[in-house]
Amino acid sequence: MIDVFAGVLARGPVREAVGDRAWLQALLDVEAALARAQARVGLISAEEAEAIAAACDAAGYSAAEIGAAAAKGGNPAQPVVTALTARVEGPARGHVHRGATSQDVVDTAAMLVARRALDLLLADLAGAADAAAELARAHRDTPMAARTLLQQAVPTTFGLKAVGWMTALDAARARLATVRDERLAVQLGGAAGTLASLGADGLAVLRALAQELGLAEPVLPWHTDRTRVGELAGALGEACGAVAKAARDVTLLSQTEVGEVREAAGGGSSTMPHKRNPVASIAAVACARRAPGLVADVLAAMEHEHERAAGAWHAEWAPLNDLLVAAGSAAAWLRACLEGLEVDAERMRANLALTGGLLMAERVSTALGRTLGRGAAHEVVERAAAAAADGGRPFADVLRDDPEIRERVGAGEIDRLLDPAGYLGSAGALVDRALEAHRMLGLAP
Amino acid sequence: MIDVFAGVLARGPVREAVGDRAWLQALLDVEAALARAQARVGLISAEEAEAIAAACDAAGYSAAEIGAAAAKGGNPAQPVVTALTARVEGPARGHVHRGATSQDVVDTAAMLVARRALDLLLADLAGAADAAAELARAHRDTPMAARTLLQQAVPTTFGLKAVGWMTALDAARARLATVRDERLAVQLGGAAGTLASLGADGLAVLRALAQELGLAEPVLPWHTDRTRVGELAGALGEACGAVAKAARDVTLLSQTEVGEVREAAGGGSSTMPHKRNPVASIAAVACARRAPGLVADVLAAMEHEHERAAGAWHAEWAPLNDLLVAAGSAAAWLRACLEGLEVDAERMRANLALTGGLLMAERVSTALGRTLGRGAAHEVVERAAAAAADGGRPFADVLRDDPEIRERVGAGEIDRLLDPAGYLGSAGALVDRALEAHRMLGLAP
Amino acid sequence: MIDVFAGVLARGPVREAVGDRAWLQALLDVEAALARAQARVGLISAEEAEAIAAACDAAGYSAAEIGAAAAKGGNPAQPVVTALTARVEGPARGHVHRGATSQDVVDTAAMLVARRALDLLLADLAGAADAAAELARAHRDTPMAARTLLQQAVPTTFGLKAVGWMTALDAARARLATVRDERLAVQLGGAAGTLASLGADGLAVLRALAQELGLAEPVLPWHTDRTRVGELAGALGEACGAVAKAARDVTLLSQTEVGEVREAAGGGSSTMPHKRNPVASIAAVACARRAPGLVADVLAAMEHEHERAAGAWHAEWAPLNDLLVAAGSAAAWLRACLEGLEVDAERMRANLALTGGLLMAERVSTALGRTLGRGAAHEVVERAAAAAADGGRPFADVLRDDPEIRERVGAGEIDRLLDPAGYLGSAGALVDRALEAHRMLGLAP
Amino acid sequence: MIDVFAGVLARGPVREAVGDRAWLQALLDVEAALARAQARVGLISAEEAEAIAAACDAAGYSAAEIGAAAAKGGNPAQPVVTALTARVEGPARGHVHRGATSQDVVDTAAMLVARRALDLLLADLAGAADAAAELARAHRDTPMAARTLLQQAVPTTFGLKAVGWMTALDAARARLATVRDERLAVQLGGAAGTLASLGADGLAVLRALAQELGLAEPVLPWHTDRTRVGELAGALGEACGAVAKAARDVTLLSQTEVGEVREAAGGGSSTMPHKRNPVASIAAVACARRAPGLVADVLAAMEHEHERAAGAWHAEWAPLNDLLVAAGSAAAWLRACLEGLEVDAERMRANLALTGGLLMAERVSTALGRTLGRGAAHEVVERAAAAAADGGRPFADVLRDDPEIRERVGAGEIDRLLDPAGYLGSAGALVDRALEAHRMLGLAP
Repeated sequence: MIDVFAGVLARGPVREAVGDRAWLQALLDVEAALARAQARVGLISAEEAEAIAAACDAAGYSAAEIGAAAAKGGNPAQPVVTALTARVEGPARGHVHRGATSQDVVDTAAMLVARRALDLLLADLAGAADAAAELARAHRDTPMAARTLLQQAVPTTFGLKAVGWMTALDAARARLATVRDERLAVQLGGAAGTLASLGADGLAVLRALAQELGLAEPVLPWHTDRTRVGELAGALGEACGAVAKAARDVTLLSQTEVGEVREAAGGGSSTMPHKRNPVASIAAVACARRAPGLVADVLAAMEHEHERAAGAWHAEWAPLNDLLVAAGSAAAWLRACLEGLEVDAERMRANLALTGGLLMAERVSTALGRTLGRGAAHEVVERAAAAAADGGRPFADVLRDDPEIRERVGAGEIDRLLDPAGYLGSAGALVDRALEAHRMLGLAP
Repeated sequence: MIDVFAGVLARGPVREAVGDRAWLQALLDVEAALARAQARVGLISAEEAEAIAAACDAAGYSAAEIGAAAAKGGNPAQPVVTALTARVEGPARGHVHRGATSQDVVDTAAMLVARRALDLLLADLAGAADAAAELARAHRDTPMAARTLLQQAVPTTFGLKAVGWMTALDAARARLATVRDERLAVQLGGAAGTLASLGADGLAVLRALAQELGLAEPVLPWHTDRTRVGELAGALGEACGAVAKAARDVTLLSQTEVGEVREAAGGGSSTMPHKRNPVASIAAVACARRAPGLVADVLAAMEHEHERAAGAWHAEWAPLNDLLVAAGSAAAWLRACLEGLEVDAERMRANLALTGGLLMAERVSTALGRTLGRGAAHEVVERAAAAAADGGRPFADVLRDDPEIRERVGAGEIDRLLDPAGYLGSAGALVDRALEAHRMLGLAP
Repeated sequence: MIDVFAGVLARGPVREAVGDRAWLQALLDVEAALARAQARVGLISAEEAEAIAAACDAAGYSAAEIGAAAAKGGNPAQPVVTALTARVEGPARGHVHRGATSQDVVDTAAMLVARRALDLLLADLAGAADAAAELARAHRDTPMAARTLLQQAVPTTFGLKAVGWMTALDAARARLATVRDERLAVQLGGAAGTLASLGADGLAVLRALAQELGLAEPVLPWHTDRTRVGELAGALGEACGAVAKAARDVTLLSQTEVGEVREAAGGGSSTMPHKRNPVASIAAVACARRAPGLVADVLAAMEHEHERAAGAWHAEWAPLNDLLVAAGSAAAWLRACLEGLEVDAERMRANLALTGGLLMAERVSTALGRTLGRGAAHEVVERAAAAAADGGRPFADVLRDDPEIRERVGAGEIDRLLDPAGYLGSAGALVDRALEAHRMLGLAP
Repeated sequence: MIDVFAGVLARGPVREAVGDRAWLQALLDVEAALARAQARVGLISAEEAEAIAAACDAAGYSAAEIGAAAAKGGNPAQPVVTALTARVEGPARGHVHRGATSQDVVDTAAMLVARRALDLLLADLAGAADAAAELARAHRDTPMAARTLLQQAVPTTFGLKAVGWMTALDAARARLATVRDERLAVQLGGAAGTLASLGADGLAVLRALAQELGLAEPVLPWHTDRTRVGELAGALGEACGAVAKAARDVTLLSQTEVGEVREAAGGGSSTMPHKRNPVASIAAVACARRAPGLVADVLAAMEHEHERAAGAWHAEWAPLNDLLVAAGSAAAWLRACLEGLEVDAERMRANLALTGGLLMAERVSTALGRTLGRGAAHEVVERAAAAAADGGRPFADVLRDDPEIRERVGAGEIDRLLDPAGYLGSAGALVDRALEAHRMLGLAP
């Protein structure tokens, strides 16, 4: 992400977490851990391991130089090894990168980068979910129009809408946390997955490496089994979808003609002095929309050839990194949006009244259906609704004037039936149980 | 999938499982279960519920008519309800579809269709994984050339390659089984998710419906939280990726110039009498490659507006159905491919010898490195490898003729170092632990 | 597309145009044309050619049987050739499919299917564009609020909005027509592109085949150059994007709170008697949204191996067919939507007034800027806009009460500045030139 | 693209051409041109225009600051205008950005960036196509095995393979050049597309701006008609597909077991001293494979809302930029690959002989068919081919030993039929006409 667009498309700390310095450090972390793992197993001495590890501080390396040199061999691990080796003195030098191949280093570094980025992303997703929960608590019983197919349908509550956002965000969090905890694993297989150059110690080094880095130990080297990468991408795509849903709702509720919510820090316009644009939700949508194509590219790259793919492996790097930025930035924007969201309960009530009671038609129909039968009731009410719409009269008036309806339900009952606050069904109970589930989620950080 | 392409792109039972009859039955199953759920809760009588359920046999309905009528309201649930209502006599008629909205029925039916299709898909994935396991057992120690970036690299075993396929397939199976068991849930929310038209009984009916259908009960109606759908799509994409990797390897190993495996039922050519094309692996690749774009479409459709999306919901139907077909068919082809795969261990051995020992260069380099230092050893061997390649001489001869090398390792040792079977590292142990993990997976059917 | 969803997702004639019967006929048309081309060149007699052509009526073949048999060889051309050969008597039998390979037949048939489907699609796109033009003519000067970032911004006209839709549809039409006329070409190369089995007559047969089918003659057989297919897919994706934009606007303008347009044939709800959902625009969006992923799959499949791809070729069939259905159906829905669109100019005017003149702020700012400087003017007006919004007062009143503003522009001028109809800039002229460009487009059918 | 991966995934000059400095300059170029356009039309003086233009050198601005400030309003144009205004003294200051809105500036800048990047991309595509042409000229008649479905099929020539690559690259070039010349247009519409703040001069300024920048003048402001962007993305996707096909072939031909080509600058391995990996073709594949998902994201973002999209617009920026990098880098790698490609005609000949003549089976079958009938001949030869394969005998021997075959064609004729060089059909003529078409293409730089 270039700087010019980063303010919008790379909000929050995730951009740095997947940036040059972070990648360089992760690559070096793998080399350091590999040396220590070999020391644990007894292949080299602890002093040698620490001599290698001491040279593994990214501050001493240039990403630009490493990147440029990567063109020669086709991956950044080779020049990292060369540069690292040059910085290690004495007998330890001969043990740098021992037993590993370039893909081992890049793949394991990718897992480290992903884990660090996921921690940040999960924090912002949690923040957004908490903000939604807060909104839901505050507006558990605030009635508003539910809209299906962008048409007012029946009443709902803002609380129920907000827990809907929260629940999706929580599902995405749970999934990402599982991927982080169970599927991010070290990769170590040597030139082709047999660990041959480590002789009889391959499996021991593999286990020690996993312990060093706090990543899972895989049953097999996974250099050409990309299910871990595919799952990570899928989970990030899911998170983006959950963010996009909530953010899209905010943009729609913010419309001039709807006006039910307002972002606290809405953005101005370069030409129109009156505008307060819902910048955070718009940016969240924009970031999230990068995901589908990026996920597709990662999934397409799962088709690796033999023991290292001729292109598919390299084709993963950019979309996976971009997905982390997209999801992280989308979550950060949504969190900012929801934490400062101003809710206009009065406007919600006014909008509920816009159709003169029309959105209570289902309820009237259900009430009538008890004596009239469902089909007949649907028709009677459909006729009344059309009469109200066509004649520009309040639905309530049309109902009261209809002798058949009046006879069956009575005028007072009509008023009661048309009160949105009385037709909220299980909304409150659903909010409560969703909030309880949110509390129970308690993801470890 | 039209018939003309179905032989290739829709192998196995999954096409029918997501076909018109299956969808129609699933839609009707939801209506039947809804009636029974209401009977459980006491909203209607058991007789009424059974009267409705009795009319819910897809054999009595025309998919073409339902589909055509769906154009009017924009979804197939409406005409199903109309047609079903017409088939129910007496007081039960008034209770058809009660409390539900069209999306409740379509979404829950989608879960039923998915569950049934997943069962079939999981069986074929398991079959493919078992076949890979069988190949691995038979060839645990069969040496072959590992190929990285499509170049011979070092030796590996066919057993290790086969457990690599198996492990990826098993990962995809485990993920799909989790989605099936935990994330396929009933959807019931009524017009806008409040369950309002069911009065105080909404949550009870929701629970009863879940029990009737054997699907999970969600904390909230999930009509606009599409994380369940996104996860399903992602898991199907992952399965396709796992299939594609194995199938791609088979097509590469089957090349005329490689010839290490052969499909039992290779296909002929319309013009070339000698050809035996690896049709099953090719078709598996073709099916699997539909996934990335379809997953992208499903993820993009997660951005639902308000309480029912104006397009995004409908945009899910085709790609989700197609994904089930793609994954199911890919798995069925791969299973057929692997169950009949003929392995030519002799050709593997011959190919290992193709480079005159060059692919043992890493081992020689490692051995030399012990006395010479890693960097210097790498250079010496690189030079010898180049001399062998350029001069058209066996690598072994070049090594033996190099006084520095001969002095350090000795001629007999050179021969030992050049034996591929002696440089397989942990391949055997890895095969064993992967097979053990496969046995432990034991997914419930 | 299964029947259950076809009413919504496969509107119009395009579904049949890419269906089993159409594909079968296209495959047979290629075989017939190939025979006639060989007769033209003198390789076989005219009688033999006609004997073959006479057997090329799809009515005599079963798509299900052909499709099932295709599984064996991996493509439908082989069983078509077998079935056709069995139906040809005498010496002509030996000339069926001569010189061609399966891919020649499938690829050329795909071009025929595409051309026929494009004709239908272009007609519906033209119909939609014409309907938009008609709306633009009728509402050339109907003022309405322009909305940027879903906020009212400044006034525009419905005419300008409608020509915006039209112009994008016309761009997509022009592109598709170019692809149809210039890029749909016959494929004939024989087993591997050399035309070897036709001896010295290969190029002559290639040319004659192109003439027979009215498709372009390529410089080279394009069996592994998929740029033609990629361009077709891209153009279909573009068309879907153009449809989606117009349809999305209709869904937004139809919102209960906006109410500026209404679909003539809006769909009802199964439970809410009052609803009139904009089904056509919603379905258009849904169909169009299939495109991005399908285009991605086609583009990914361009990476063919050698002289026929092992999977990538087959992977094109479904997404390309689906793209034709998606674009054709999206266009048909949009046409229906726009041809019956009811425009509520009064509601547009009312919505323009919703903000009490706020959306004229840019104009006031510009006017003030002439004397005050642009920056200062922007600030003054921004302050006034905020005061209006916060105090719930009409913007006009705030302006009139501000001594600085009143002094500089005068009260009468303020009223003039706040008239939306006076701030439409070049809207009318733009509508006129866009309509003229539409008239000039005159695409051949 | 971060530095660490840029060596592999961002080869050549295109990365800078779409980098921060380039974007900043393009944004400023638009502001400068807008000022000059207004001077042309007489709205401001030439001196004022030049005062503005003089401040439009990107060297005086910080991309990081602009980017960070962009977060507030949601796009980078706003802070550019602010920073630019601060750098302009005197009366000209009030005319900065006059009549334009942020989207005008970003969209037009995107077109400038695209044009500059396309020039570079087209040069590298042309270089790659020229290199392919050179290979084709040198190997017009070099026989090699054609491979279909990764199986040896019949003979072809390396010349024909190379012109196949070239023709696809040329098709992509032609398409991109058309998009560059006809579809890259200025965007100027003001706040909502009416050009209202420019009063009566809107269209004149629009035209003058187009002339200033050398971009096309659109019939309408295209802020919400994204067909131009969609076409650009599609054309870039096509280019990537064309590159990927050629690059994939190189990786396959470079396989150890095939060995027919070798990259001049093949990359070494960190652990395996003997490896010469085809790094350039692998990197080309990797870059090209980013395209499908990125194109999907751009196409999905075509669905803009009203007069400026709330997210879809912003969602275009990253994938469009990334597509330019991906295509540019893929082309640069392929050019390097093909310019230095070493072709081993001897190995091609050896591989042709690998099957003992089996890949001449079609020819033998055709010859036999003249007397035996096509079907019977196919069967006879299929049997012989199977006998050869199963018995490990040369196909020629089996043919000679078959009395029926010998009787019909004679032993000498069998040898003639089995000579690959005699069964190349129109390969030479096709190479010639393709090279002629390449010469005729003559795209303007």
